[in-house]
Amino acid sequence: MAGSCKRRTFAALMVHLESDYNNGAHEVVLRHFLETNTERSQSYGDDRFSQQARASIREACGAPDAQVYFLAGGTQTNATIIDSVLQPYEGVLCCETAHINVHEAGAVEFTGHKVLVVRPNQQEADHAGSGTSDGKLHATDLRAWLENYFADDTAEHMVRPGMVYITFPTELGTLYTADELRSLHEVCEAYHLPLYVDGARLAYGIAASPDVTLPLLAQLADIFYIGGTKCGALCGEAVVFPKGNAPSHMLSRIKQHGALLAKSRVVGVQFDALFADGLYLSLGSDAVRLAMRLGHLFVDVLGYRPFIDSPTNQQFYIIPNEQLENLRRHIGFEVWCPVDAQHTACRFVTSWATTEAEIAELEQELVWNAAGNACL
Amino acid sequence: MAGSCKRRTFAALMVHLESDYNNGAHEVVLRHFLETNTERSQSYGDDRFSQQARASIREACGAPDAQVYFLAGGTQTNATIIDSVLQPYEGVLCCETAHINVHEAGAVEFTGHKVLVVRPNQQEADHAGSGTSDGKLHATDLRAWLENYFADDTAEHMVRPGMVYITFPTELGTLYTADELRSLHEVCEAYHLPLYVDGARLAYGIAASPDVTLPLLAQLADIFYIGGTKCGALCGEAVVFPKGNAPSHMLSRIKQHGALLAKSRVVGVQFDALFADGLYLSLGSDAVRLAMRLGHLFVDVLGYRPFIDSPTNQQFYIIPNEQLENLRRHIGFEVWCPVDAQHTACRFVTSWATTEAEIAELEQELVWNAAGNACL
Amino acid sequence: MAGSCKRRTFAALMVHLESDYNNGAHEVVLRHFLETNTERSQSYGDDRFSQQARASIREACGAPDAQVYFLAGGTQTNATIIDSVLQPYEGVLCCETAHINVHEAGAVEFTGHKVLVVRPNQQEADHAGSGTSDGKLHATDLRAWLENYFADDTAEHMVRPGMVYITFPTELGTLYTADELRSLHEVCEAYHLPLYVDGARLAYGIAASPDVTLPLLAQLADIFYIGGTKCGALCGEAVVFPKGNAPSHMLSRIKQHGALLAKSRVVGVQFDALFADGLYLSLGSDAVRLAMRLGHLFVDVLGYRPFIDSPTNQQFYIIPNEQLENLRRHIGFEVWCPVDAQHTACRFVTSWATTEAEIAELEQELVWNAAGNACL
Amino acid sequence: MAGSCKRRTFAALMVHLESDYNNGAHEVVLRHFLETNTERSQSYGDDRFSQQARASIREACGAPDAQVYFLAGGTQTNATIIDSVLQPYEGVLCCETAHINVHEAGAVEFTGHKVLVVRPNQQEADHAGSGTSDGKLHATDLRAWLENYFADDTAEHMVRPGMVYITFPTELGTLYTADELRSLHEVCEAYHLPLYVDGARLAYGIAASPDVTLPLLAQLADIFYIGGTKCGALCGEAVVFPKGNAPSHMLSRIKQHGALLAKSRVVGVQFDALFADGLYLSLGSDAVRLAMRLGHLFVDVLGYRPFIDSPTNQQFYIIPNEQLENLRRHIGFEVWCPVDAQHTACRFVTSWATTEAEIAELEQELVWNAAGNACL
Repeated sequence: MAGSCKRRTFAALMVHLESDYNNGAHEVVLRHFLETNTERSQSYGDDRFSQQARASIREACGAPDAQVYFLAGGTQTNATIIDSVLQPYEGVLCCETAHINVHEAGAVEFTGHKVLVVRPNQQEADHAGSGTSDGKLHATDLRAWLENYFADDTAEHMVRPGMVYITFPTELGTLYTADELRSLHEVCEAYHLPLYVDGARLAYGIAASPDVTLPLLAQLADIFYIGGTKCGALCGEAVVFPKGNAPSHMLSRIKQHGALLAKSRVVGVQFDALFADGLYLSLGSDAVRLAMRLGHLFVDVLGYRPFIDSPTNQQFYIIPNEQLENLRRHIGFEVWCPVDAQHTACRFVTSWATTEAEIAELEQELVWNAAGNACL
Repeated sequence: MAGSCKRRTFAALMVHLESDYNNGAHEVVLRHFLETNTERSQSYGDDRFSQQARASIREACGAPDAQVYFLAGGTQTNATIIDSVLQPYEGVLCCETAHINVHEAGAVEFTGHKVLVVRPNQQEADHAGSGTSDGKLHATDLRAWLENYFADDTAEHMVRPGMVYITFPTELGTLYTADELRSLHEVCEAYHLPLYVDGARLAYGIAASPDVTLPLLAQLADIFYIGGTKCGALCGEAVVFPKGNAPSHMLSRIKQHGALLAKSRVVGVQFDALFADGLYLSLGSDAVRLAMRLGHLFVDVLGYRPFIDSPTNQQFYIIPNEQLENLRRHIGFEVWCPVDAQHTACRFVTSWATTEAEIAELEQELVWNAAGNACL
Repeated sequence: MAGSCKRRTFAALMVHLESDYNNGAHEVVLRHFLETNTERSQSYGDDRFSQQARASIREACGAPDAQVYFLAGGTQTNATIIDSVLQPYEGVLCCETAHINVHEAGAVEFTGHKVLVVRPNQQEADHAGSGTSDGKLHATDLRAWLENYFADDTAEHMVRPGMVYITFPTELGTLYTADELRSLHEVCEAYHLPLYVDGARLAYGIAASPDVTLPLLAQLADIFYIGGTKCGALCGEAVVFPKGNAPSHMLSRIKQHGALLAKSRVVGVQFDALFADGLYLSLGSDAVRLAMRLGHLFVDVLGYRPFIDSPTNQQFYIIPNEQLENLRRHIGFEVWCPVDAQHTACRFVTSWATTEAEIAELEQELVWNAAGNACL
Repeated sequence: MAGSCKRRTFAALMVHLESDYNNGAHEVVLRHFLETNTERSQSYGDDRFSQQARASIREACGAPDAQVYFLAGGTQTNATIIDSVLQPYEGVLCCETAHINVHEAGAVEFTGHKVLVVRPNQQEADHAGSGTSDGKLHATDLRAWLENYFADDTAEHMVRPGMVYITFPTELGTLYTADELRSLHEVCEAYHLPLYVDGARLAYGIAASPDVTLPLLAQLADIFYIGGTKCGALCGEAVVFPKGNAPSHMLSRIKQHGALLAKSRVVGVQFDALFADGLYLSLGSDAVRLAMRLGHLFVDVLGYRPFIDSPTNQQFYIIPNEQLENLRRHIGFEVWCPVDAQHTACRFVTSWATTEAEIAELEQELVWNAAGNACL
């Protein structure tokens, strides 16, 4: 009978793994707001906090000539940067699952530029067998696209490629290896195309990568942004032009796009906190460790198959449909896509805000459940 | 001799009156961030804080059907709202000194719309004598512009007016009276043009106005925004469509403009704090009171002439050029424009962060100075 | 020896089949310019010629309420119409080979709208076997795309579909059957999406189709344009809104897009000529008949394989690479794409300007050549 | 009595002076279409006619390195050129009556750029007394605007000037002297701003000017266009970058703006005709001569006052209101603006199509009328 059901004792438990932007800010960030609140400051990026944060980012990236701009959010950053870097007749190259191609409400096209999708070589993709993309833009596919374009007599009637966009980590949580980045960098260099890396979740990517560091990124990318919103800040993204290669009049361009904060310290204070004492990278590590522990639970203990093999804070597992409802009582997560009539791929996202305790309780709860103790 | 100069004892004093966005946030706002930080929330505007803030704003405006959207900054808000409300072939009417016409780096035109400047009737303006605009758009001038436009056979080859933009308070700190707003509202209604009120400094305007309240604004304006950045928040503006008259698919439109915050609680939490317990209006009152006290000091005690008669937190005085340097040692302010060869109009801005103590010290210092005690 | 080579006698022969826009205008069109040249007329679309042409088009389409606008060229027409019909947050759906997706230099995205590509169901496409697209957007694929979109929880973060674009004939010369158009119309109606038909080569499409007529098009399409540039005119396209369903202020919209001709008679006179006495459809028939005769020559006599089975004035054949050079001495044509290491698909385009004599000579020449008489 | 009224014998007479675009094309232009109609040609600007026309224009301008592009109409040309030359954060400077500021339906703003109005120094303007602008942008006003802008600390928040736009002749038919152009050129050079001359009516301007020639224009302007639509062509404008200074990828840019004609010979043939044998300049002279004769009739014979002193084909006279109706029976003209309660300024435009006979008849008619013979 219901009264004897142990489930109730866990009633308070709901571990939120829907996304990495459903929290407040890392406590160090909030504390920095408090400490600096009464200080008066310059505005429009000239405040002392933004200046300090810029210096820290330059140092962390080993890029003393880097220009750093602070914007408020990811879509805003992508649209502003892509539009500012491209010539009007140019488009931006990316893979099909790229955030700018799918989930930004057409913000890039809204600035007048085509998003040019590079598809994987079909034969190879089929060979891989799974039918699932790995969410990456591969250098060989990019090169093939470019060769094809420049061989076309009618190229001038088509949108000229002006930039290459990738995300690190990708939408599917996967990571480019240092070698993959080098290959992309080479193709981009050969075709004089800037390589732009969207780092909305960069903290988790750098933390999880065996060989990609901020300094390496600063060498291989022409532009990248260090995501704050999903990585410990209330809001804010730091755009880095590592070689001092920002377009002219960048301040006016950012303002035109509605992306210039008068009270620029809002983001400056946050990145000042995130880049003092290595907080940015350490909070990424914590989240990735918990994601791996979740993976162990899901795969090794509960026997779910991974939908894609992700080493970062976004985890994707294939869940039998009849277990979805029960799972939802314990975890908040996102349905990703149907896999077959009986299974659904779901996304579970840890973040800097996920705690050891939450995952431990989840382990206890789900194992207990799997042992047949669940009651409705 | 320098040693006997008393000035040194005030060395630490520098009252910052350059702008109302060189501070952090009101302590109640920061405290609310702390209190709510560990709570998990929905995103993209669905979070509990944004919902609560919306409810409070609806109530404060006496507009139960109002739709409320939270954006991050003023230029962003103006560009997004104007572009979303206008048809592509329409422009926005405003007076020459309007913020959108001068200081937004062309963000409105960047979205494809002409800013249509309504000039005052020259004869009347000359009659007024001062040569100084009062920063307002007057209903008679607006009506004359519209009559002229619609009488023109070639109107279809010109930009069609699609909206009227004013600021409350204006760029010059002045305020429309309730009757002036009513007259504008009538002209707008007659021509089926929505009236949009930019309230970047609305807290100070409402606090200073004898007859304009939030509910009145919600009756007379078709759209207005309640400024946060300059009125106690770290960032954020609340756009109100008081009659539930927002354009369709507003969320997608906001996102397209790069103005949708994933972690929407960032602004939600702040407006939740600002609109609980009447904080928004009371902080405006405090700043206005100190501005009036500053005016008394400048005009009645020190004998400066006002450049314009402003009842709000932006004060403009005509300073003899030879006193500018000395004044700068005590106060941070902005040079507005030259008045004649010997005088300069300067702007002094109080805010929610200005303290009684600061103004008191300033009085003491400046009076002491004026008494001939200054030393260099 | 060279002296005995008969080729020289054909030296003058070069039948131009590169495109249908490398000629002047149909002589009836030019004659109409001459006849009307000294007449003074209204401008911006109010001239008597444009009015007459509009009346003729309405009659030919059996659409007495149709609104007809004359623009100058195809890309201009597509960008202007699509941008005018769509809401800012909407995109236009089309198949991958659509002209707007490939060969308009991103003119649609330049107006701020995403081109949303509907891909064929892979399984079916593979089943078809050829690997060659038929250049059409199929109703089943369209419906699947739309179902998918509207089932997505994140739809508001994606570009909303606002219109469906097809060409008649397609880029590959193929034609939708009346039933295929009806199916597309049904899907569009179910989803409240206007169906827009790009008729750059409409004269050839209608002439070749067994069941699609102008009146049927006017019933099934919400907007279509009757191409002039490729169908007998010097320049000009007639946009038809068959149900009087043009967006408001269309004249201003067209002008904004730089597409309003002051001297509107320029296009008016041409469409007046093209739609008097059925010239438009009869010149299409002539070109299609010659295209079929060319097909007979290429396939039945010379043994080339068609690359795609086109019933219209654009013909695509697979030519052995070693014969390309020789063929080029007799015909101007366009290389379409490589088929395999030894073969290339080429496009041959007849038009209203192609003559019986040209095709006859070509037959003689190529048969004579094929008989082994060619010399270099 | 009515029966004896001679007016009836003139019933057929209506001299059309409403505009210079209500005719067909100069007969030499039409003839050239006929002569070349059956020739096959390249497209997108590579046709032999466009190439020949470009060579003739280069020669007429004494600018062997000039790049010449052919577009279809004036608004299209202005929007395309201005948008292609400006950086996104730049605006275009012009005087208040400039065509781009008033009568292009906001086409420039539609491409994202602010039209920055340079107002005349009020004191001087008042001194001039008439209250009527001369339709020109004066170098001193331009310089003052620029000095002001660059002295402003907040310049980066305002739209940066990126180009100067003037028309030759102006909207009011007036002409810049060679010295005035030199002064503008100097200011532009000092501020690194390209000077762009809109020559929609250039034929009439050059014909009427005592000292401005095409070669001088090619020296002093950085970009200008030679108007065809109003000067003998059916349609078409020739944009000249005299120093080979066109922006990169101009063809793609033109196409993006919907301004690239596939069948480029349409404009090529026309400019080929207009620039062979000096036709362009001679047709301008003819129209100006007739405009002067009209001026003699209106001022010296009929006693009307000129509204503005125009030396070109656009003439402006002040007509007593009670004579408007009668005048309209003889001449088609445009009402420009009311002058006072009893008088209206009207515009009378001659063109290449106006004939000696028409003006002669008009003289006869109006003099006869003025002698009191009019009957209603």
